[in-house]
Amino acid sequence: MTALLTDLYQLTMLQAYLHRGMIEPAVFELFVRKLPGERNFLVAAGLEQALEFLETLGFTEREIDWLERQGGFSADLLAQLREFRFTGDVDAMPEGTVFFPDEPILRVTAPLPQAQLVESRLLNIVHLQTLIASKAARIVIAGSGHQLVDFGMRRAHGAEAALFASRASWLAGFDGTATAEAGLRYGIPVFGTMAHSFVQAHRSEREAFENFARARPKRAVMLVDTYDTEAAVTKVIELYPLLAADGIRIAGVRLDSGDLGAHAKAVRAMLDAAGLKEMIVFASGNLDEHRIRRLLADGAPIDGFGVGTALDTSSDVPTIDAVYKLQWYAGVARRKRSEGKATWPGIKQVWRRHDEHGRIAGDRVGLADEAPDGEPLLQPCMRAGRRLPTMPTLDEARAHCRAQLAHLPEALRALEPAPVAYPVEISGRLRELAREVDAATS
Amino acid sequence: MTALLTDLYQLTMLQAYLHRGMIEPAVFELFVRKLPGERNFLVAAGLEQALEFLETLGFTEREIDWLERQGGFSADLLAQLREFRFTGDVDAMPEGTVFFPDEPILRVTAPLPQAQLVESRLLNIVHLQTLIASKAARIVIAGSGHQLVDFGMRRAHGAEAALFASRASWLAGFDGTATAEAGLRYGIPVFGTMAHSFVQAHRSEREAFENFARARPKRAVMLVDTYDTEAAVTKVIELYPLLAADGIRIAGVRLDSGDLGAHAKAVRAMLDAAGLKEMIVFASGNLDEHRIRRLLADGAPIDGFGVGTALDTSSDVPTIDAVYKLQWYAGVARRKRSEGKATWPGIKQVWRRHDEHGRIAGDRVGLADEAPDGEPLLQPCMRAGRRLPTMPTLDEARAHCRAQLAHLPEALRALEPAPVAYPVEISGRLRELAREVDAATS
Repeated sequence: MTALLTDLYQLTMLQAYLHRGMIEPAVFELFVRKLPGERNFLVAAGLEQALEFLETLGFTEREIDWLERQGGFSADLLAQLREFRFTGDVDAMPEGTVFFPDEPILRVTAPLPQAQLVESRLLNIVHLQTLIASKAARIVIAGSGHQLVDFGMRRAHGAEAALFASRASWLAGFDGTATAEAGLRYGIPVFGTMAHSFVQAHRSEREAFENFARARPKRAVMLVDTYDTEAAVTKVIELYPLLAADGIRIAGVRLDSGDLGAHAKAVRAMLDAAGLKEMIVFASGNLDEHRIRRLLADGAPIDGFGVGTALDTSSDVPTIDAVYKLQWYAGVARRKRSEGKATWPGIKQVWRRHDEHGRIAGDRVGLADEAPDGEPLLQPCMRAGRRLPTMPTLDEARAHCRAQLAHLPEALRALEPAPVAYPVEISGRLRELAREVDAATS
Repeated sequence: MTALLTDLYQLTMLQAYLHRGMIEPAVFELFVRKLPGERNFLVAAGLEQALEFLETLGFTEREIDWLERQGGFSADLLAQLREFRFTGDVDAMPEGTVFFPDEPILRVTAPLPQAQLVESRLLNIVHLQTLIASKAARIVIAGSGHQLVDFGMRRAHGAEAALFASRASWLAGFDGTATAEAGLRYGIPVFGTMAHSFVQAHRSEREAFENFARARPKRAVMLVDTYDTEAAVTKVIELYPLLAADGIRIAGVRLDSGDLGAHAKAVRAMLDAAGLKEMIVFASGNLDEHRIRRLLADGAPIDGFGVGTALDTSSDVPTIDAVYKLQWYAGVARRKRSEGKATWPGIKQVWRRHDEHGRIAGDRVGLADEAPDGEPLLQPCMRAGRRLPTMPTLDEARAHCRAQLAHLPEALRALEPAPVAYPVEISGRLRELAREVDAATS
């Protein structure tokens, strides 16, 4: 990805830093200021793509030319950009880790110009995947073991959003995606049924079903709501033995409109009465965690859910207040005090305690050189601009996330806001440092 | 962009279509089912990228290999995909056109497999840019001529979302973006100030301002809220004459937190008292159309606004109910009747009437071969897979959008939902066709 995928001011500031020789090590931390909407926790995601971005960052001649044409950038800066590469260190929470406000989830240590330049794109990557993984985790909890498939590509915000949504939802426990490229790129299982247009293009619905089953003999799932749901299921039931005679098995039906719970009950009863107990009922159409929970609570006999727009855009909470802030430079802790946006200074670590059942019980944010107090969440992932070989695979991150969700206290697993926030303590030494920094800053 | 950036079912359906020789011309139309949230109108955008996608679509060997490994795809289909290219026609509303529910904004006419395959990515492109242009148009209306800059890259949903947001907001009337790559790619003006980290990295705020001004002598805008806004402005005022002696002019100050209106009034008074009347006051920080309107209504002396997250994610309405539906195949009009999601069949056109002041007064959706009734909104843009040379440039689209917004009735320009919806009439012949299609479909 291009190095110009950044805010212009990063480059302007670089010029000023270089002009004054301000190239000493800086520490920036990425964290979230507050939990948005109904979220009781967030799930860290996007680290792999963030590190890939840092490892491959560099300017092309075309980009340097464009900067030159903008005016205001010195020949010195442009020469340095030609050679630019990221040589810093990164420590971060492993992907799939549950986290809370004020906790750094990623820390960059690098010469100031490098650490500054990467801000916009690092946030852009980590914000999006964390947003989607956090939404997906809620849907996974609501789905309580039923099959969940990402159906959202068409209304995701562009190509990368679609692919990152497939990845982040798989990481958080989805069973797969409909987006083919996500299968190729990340090795995620890819699912698909049929569209209404397929039914419409045929002279009759029955002909459409038969054609589809013959073209996909092992796993055809029939979309039954194009005209009349129950009438369509009657056609599926009539076709079943005819196709079975040719060795073709219809795998299931998909509902996509109307009262999904009522249709599911009617359809399940029809299929069971016809002896087709193994045929699955799959549902889609404006689903989210609340609707899925309600359907299952009402006993809707639905085997799997396709979740689209609500997942891929995290539509109830389409953005998290994620920021990347300078906390330390040239040996001195730093802090901004802007109204309502003050930060905790210094190089930090997050320690987590568990209760006797293994559930997470409380975190402490302190300075990285304080005495450890529980499990340290920030782990080394990049040194001198190269990823460490110990980085988990996507499957390992997914397993980690599953364990994290299993160890959430019940109040945090609720879809509604928890009555009491998860305890995140700021250490005494960190509070003391903040006072010292304030006293010293003018 | 990869051809696998699609839902898997498109490929499964292709196999079934090819298997049965269903390759006759099909017509799909892209439209929005209803206006979301506070939107009184939508702005069509993304056509250029949609056409570029169609013109360059094709499968690589790596993609064909992946499909082969999935199993279930015939050698015949894979051979056809190797040669795949889009050879169809597209008619669409020019970018920047204001439109309403049930109005097709883009129509694809192509052999059924081609028209089907492109659904997911076409929607993905047009949905996002239309979403952002529609949000941006509201901000442009609220900003009433003040400078507006897209600041949202870091919280846009990925790389493409950031770039498309810059493009779509510029199209809708923004003055530029902070995203450098959008400048290179689309020729959009790029703006930038400084970050809090820049101030924090210096030993003092005053040193930071001086360093920044010397590195950017003609257009430095100082961020003044890192520690204390008014104290920072005092430093800017003290520095001004010293830097002016070196031929350096501080262009303005940026407020980013707290009560922006109160700070703007205090800061403006301080600058004016110091004789710095030409210095601008720029504001950012969680802005949207409502906050901008309130600030301006309260007389806040703000010259320009940076709008980030609310613009780039269209955070109040992060998704529109945009769909792409088969309306005609092999000479026969088609229609889906799914509960709550029925469509109007046939190949359609939208005609628009204006009142005596040039304001838009009502649209009619009818069959394309009906007698025209006003200005036809769908225009030819692609024939036999090639873009027509008559396509407007981005600057022309921007001018078109400006004219469109200027001709909106006052009720639609309000930020709140209009008491009466804009009249969109469905023609008698179209209603008649829908009845005929229903009677004929089983």
